[in-house]
Amino acid sequence: MRTMPLSKAFTLIEPGPVVWVTTWDGKKNNVMTISWTMVLDFTPRFALTTGAWNYSFRALDKTRECVLAIPGADLLDVVVGIGTCSGADTDKFAKFHLTPVPARIVQAPLIKECLANIECKVVDIVRRHDIIVLEAVAAHISTGRKETRILHAVGDGTFIVDGRRLDRRKAMASKLPPGV
Amino acid sequence: MRTMPLSKAFTLIEPGPVVWVTTWDGKKNNVMTISWTMVLDFTPRFALTTGAWNYSFRALDKTRECVLAIPGADLLDVVVGIGTCSGADTDKFAKFHLTPVPARIVQAPLIKECLANIECKVVDIVRRHDIIVLEAVAAHISTGRKETRILHAVGDGTFIVDGRRLDRRKAMASKLPPGV
Repeated sequence: MRTMPLSKAFTLIEPGPVVWVTTWDGKKNNVMTISWTMVLDFTPRFALTTGAWNYSFRALDKTRECVLAIPGADLLDVVVGIGTCSGADTDKFAKFHLTPVPARIVQAPLIKECLANIECKVVDIVRRHDIIVLEAVAAHISTGRKETRILHAVGDGTFIVDGRRLDRRKAMASKLPPGV
Repeated sequence: MRTMPLSKAFTLIEPGPVVWVTTWDGKKNNVMTISWTMVLDFTPRFALTTGAWNYSFRALDKTRECVLAIPGADLLDVVVGIGTCSGADTDKFAKFHLTPVPARIVQAPLIKECLANIECKVVDIVRRHDIIVLEAVAAHISTGRKETRILHAVGDGTFIVDGRRLDRRKAMASKLPPGV
């Protein structure tokens, strides 16, 4: 993994990937699968939807830290596995053979098998809407991967894999933030 | 266009599409391109990021209504065109040959050329984070389209088109909401 400039980290979330959120509650690591995320600004800050019904929420609320890890399309069945069990009774890193890697700033782990990892601090919890506001503090990208496509959950049990990438950088130039 | 059950409408936003937001300010229609959206619940409610710097925000704030329209991949250059001009000085429906269609509940128009359209009411504006909270009140889907792939913006001027769809409905069954 190599460091990715924070000015580019919003491009990891903007396309709408399936995301793993890792947490460390003081005793153990945990990870959940979510798709309900969005970019808030180019800092970057991100929003995600979760709340008290969710086991990982306790660690997020207590530690105010997490990592957003982006699995490649080759990890689809692990995405489904992680999304259908709970950290309340399962050590998901062990069960799914994921490798926790110490992060640079937060206590939550990076995931070695992922395409990218974003270390985040919780800056606010908008409880009336179950929105968690995160600020990225470090980003890491894996290099030399054969599988670089991400997954998009539809929400009905099907998942779309990235297809072709179309370049409109020239036409979009006036709207791109600095450093991208 | 035919009516889509509201219980399925979250599946239009969960994969992270490029979205057009249409508004009617009392005098004219407008449309903007955004990618910063997420699902909040299965009602469905959605969140999107925008604020006072944005021309469409005024109409959203005043009328508390909009339509989320999902363009297909064949409309990429219109997506880029709409994203790089402003409703302040441009009639985007005329310039880009989009056909406004009266919605069922809201005053903002549906877009005939889109794959799907979701009529929404603004239920809250979280001004400290520039988050708009929407509740869907009607959804429409176009049938018989040759192009059904959606676009995912990366944020650097490139766009990813949907690739293959992988079916994990059986494995995900325990986590799917009713009516999907």
